[in-house]
Amino acid sequence: MSNPTLVADVVALARAAKAAARIMAKAPVAQRRTALVAIADEIVARRDEILAANARDLDAAKAAGMAPAMQDRLKLDGGRVQGLANAVRAVSQAPDLVGRLERAESLPSGLELTRMRIPLGVIAMIYEARPGVTTDAAALCLWSGNACLLRGGSEAFHSNAALGAAVAAGLAAAGLPATAVQIVPFTDREAIAELVKLDELVDLVIPRGGEGLIRFVAERARVPVIKHYKGVCHIFIHAAADLDMALNIIDNAKTQRPGVCNAVETVLIDRAIATRAVPALLNRLAARVELRTDDEFRAIAAHAGHPAAAQLRLADEADWHAEYLDLVLAVRIVDGLDGAIAHIEQYASDHTESIITADAAVAERFVREVQSSTVMVNASTRFADGGELGLGAEIGISTTKIHAYGPMGAEGLTTTKFVVRGNGQVRS
Amino acid sequence: MSNPTLVADVVALARAAKAAARIMAKAPVAQRRTALVAIADEIVARRDEILAANARDLDAAKAAGMAPAMQDRLKLDGGRVQGLANAVRAVSQAPDLVGRLERAESLPSGLELTRMRIPLGVIAMIYEARPGVTTDAAALCLWSGNACLLRGGSEAFHSNAALGAAVAAGLAAAGLPATAVQIVPFTDREAIAELVKLDELVDLVIPRGGEGLIRFVAERARVPVIKHYKGVCHIFIHAAADLDMALNIIDNAKTQRPGVCNAVETVLIDRAIATRAVPALLNRLAARVELRTDDEFRAIAAHAGHPAAAQLRLADEADWHAEYLDLVLAVRIVDGLDGAIAHIEQYASDHTESIITADAAVAERFVREVQSSTVMVNASTRFADGGELGLGAEIGISTTKIHAYGPMGAEGLTTTKFVVRGNGQVRS
Repeated sequence: MSNPTLVADVVALARAAKAAARIMAKAPVAQRRTALVAIADEIVARRDEILAANARDLDAAKAAGMAPAMQDRLKLDGGRVQGLANAVRAVSQAPDLVGRLERAESLPSGLELTRMRIPLGVIAMIYEARPGVTTDAAALCLWSGNACLLRGGSEAFHSNAALGAAVAAGLAAAGLPATAVQIVPFTDREAIAELVKLDELVDLVIPRGGEGLIRFVAERARVPVIKHYKGVCHIFIHAAADLDMALNIIDNAKTQRPGVCNAVETVLIDRAIATRAVPALLNRLAARVELRTDDEFRAIAAHAGHPAAAQLRLADEADWHAEYLDLVLAVRIVDGLDGAIAHIEQYASDHTESIITADAAVAERFVREVQSSTVMVNASTRFADGGELGLGAEIGISTTKIHAYGPMGAEGLTTTKFVVRGNGQVRS
Repeated sequence: MSNPTLVADVVALARAAKAAARIMAKAPVAQRRTALVAIADEIVARRDEILAANARDLDAAKAAGMAPAMQDRLKLDGGRVQGLANAVRAVSQAPDLVGRLERAESLPSGLELTRMRIPLGVIAMIYEARPGVTTDAAALCLWSGNACLLRGGSEAFHSNAALGAAVAAGLAAAGLPATAVQIVPFTDREAIAELVKLDELVDLVIPRGGEGLIRFVAERARVPVIKHYKGVCHIFIHAAADLDMALNIIDNAKTQRPGVCNAVETVLIDRAIATRAVPALLNRLAARVELRTDDEFRAIAAHAGHPAAAQLRLADEADWHAEYLDLVLAVRIVDGLDGAIAHIEQYASDHTESIITADAAVAERFVREVQSSTVMVNASTRFADGGELGLGAEIGISTTKIHAYGPMGAEGLTTTKFVVRGNGQVRS
């Protein structure tokens, strides 16, 4: 790296974060709660400043020709600002994890062992346009006793600065160091590359955004990274499926919000039910969703005389890997449960897979053998989300099996230490 | 990296491990148990071959002038070989973790959520001279449903090959793929550098050995790493300590086995008890242990007229960082609990720290505020060990807070996935 001033600046931020983390780790729960409530109040009180800052970002985004969907992610309005404040307040109502004792045991040596839950220390979040991540991440990190460095996208620079000022004011009101949450003001990727190397100062990096950003971080990080590149979620219609249930679930999982990582991207159909399932799926989805299918699906559709058969596009290898994030769905006929599992083992992103079946033994084998981070039976993949799965707010999703696997909430920002109490024991 | 043949060979090993990991993850507990028992039997049956291979390694080590302590770590004899077999058998008696259901909840959507414990997949162990790591690691990885790549030191090349053959024979006897445990036959560091980059094939790297080896791995790894660089363990004699207890514990923690990472390296003495503790510590240890102390300690010793006072060497900054692994101890007078915690925050390696005190409130503050992976009250740091802390066999120790913190046993080789069961739920 060529810019020694930038290096020094990034190191200085991280050092300040580490010093603040020591204070946060000792801060009593009442003080952490006071801080979150004060932050929520500050966000509401500074609504006009925050919206003005956001308007500057939006103007620049429009001028730069940002896509409308991205502009929508960037945009705040009065209701959304209130939503950010409410989310911070909701985090302050979650159970306190810091200092929680777990798994007490008496050891043969007479020592008493427990595990005590403690914060990780310094969390670096690296994310893109959505300014709400700034206050969500700040609230989760503070509540779990951590300090954080928040490096949002340059598109949201002014919005994040305004939200960061609200967070700092709330921290100060609670007597906690404002450096417990620092907005990283360097918007180029060099600063990220430097930050993720600081393994003596930063305990965890969580990149959120497009696959390009996440790979940029993962390839350079010396600090541990919690990440998922993409969600290629599968739904398998087993021979013993309730076909109406299957169609409802697939429709929901594909069309309710196609641009998110827990939307379904590939449907696998058990050959034993294909002659019924193929026309039913076409009837349900073909008018709204582009289907890319294998030869066999097309042949069955043609044989059934379905009018959509002629327009079906054949899937190629890239389709089995694709995260469309759009109203496009890959469909393949497979040879029963084993065929479905084999396809999933080859192509899944370890995010979420669901089986539709009324056969409990088949469901059990699917649940045991599919190693994705969320495995479902008779439910929409759209439920693979920290909020829906009872974690409270979600800081990220991990498809790496280390530390956290699947949706990650406040508990993922903590670890446990061994606490051993004796009365003079020595080892013989 | 300049050697494409080596790259291809390392990738081929890792691919085979990943294929074996899929089979291991589905292998029933009875089959995994059969494999471990068969491996233990094979180790015993092949004792003479194993000892002959070890003799070749020892001859080479002697010829190369290896230090006697290292030769002792490398050496096997009949009793040690039997010990390796017994350790494998003991692992097969531990509770089975694979498929264990945890934390069942009913969600507001009507979905039923549990977590199911699953193997990580492929574990790469990178270690030095001790051949026992080969069979210990193989047993723990297989028992927890993983495959592993074992890259021992070149000093133990023939020993590890002989032990690996016993493991492969045991796997085959149980109908499991021999590729579930592969001895990496490439002894240069280029092969390690290549292996630790394969984040699509390897799930976790555990380096064990000297700080140089561990830094080599950590600086190159793209795969997550569980590691500790060193153990700079502290014992703090608080004003309210039972001084006899403190001396017994310090003596044990320093002298019972000085060459291990949980031996004490620095003793902190509360100024309030220093006039009693300094002469007592000298009386207890000065004949057997070299003390490196601060000025104040020396002044108190001189004032007390202690004969050892004149020979005391002054500690410098390097001593507070030192992992001596020898009969040397750094000693410092500190200003009560706050002084002890401040010293520990600055110098500790996050391994193990112990306080000696009869004051429960002080002990509680020490336990809460010291963020090391093992925190003790009135006990010897030598208990910071997976076996002593009830984990069964230990695969490593982590001083990084991600995934595992402190001694890590079989559970650290697993994670949990979310299992969600519904009856047709869709998200609205």
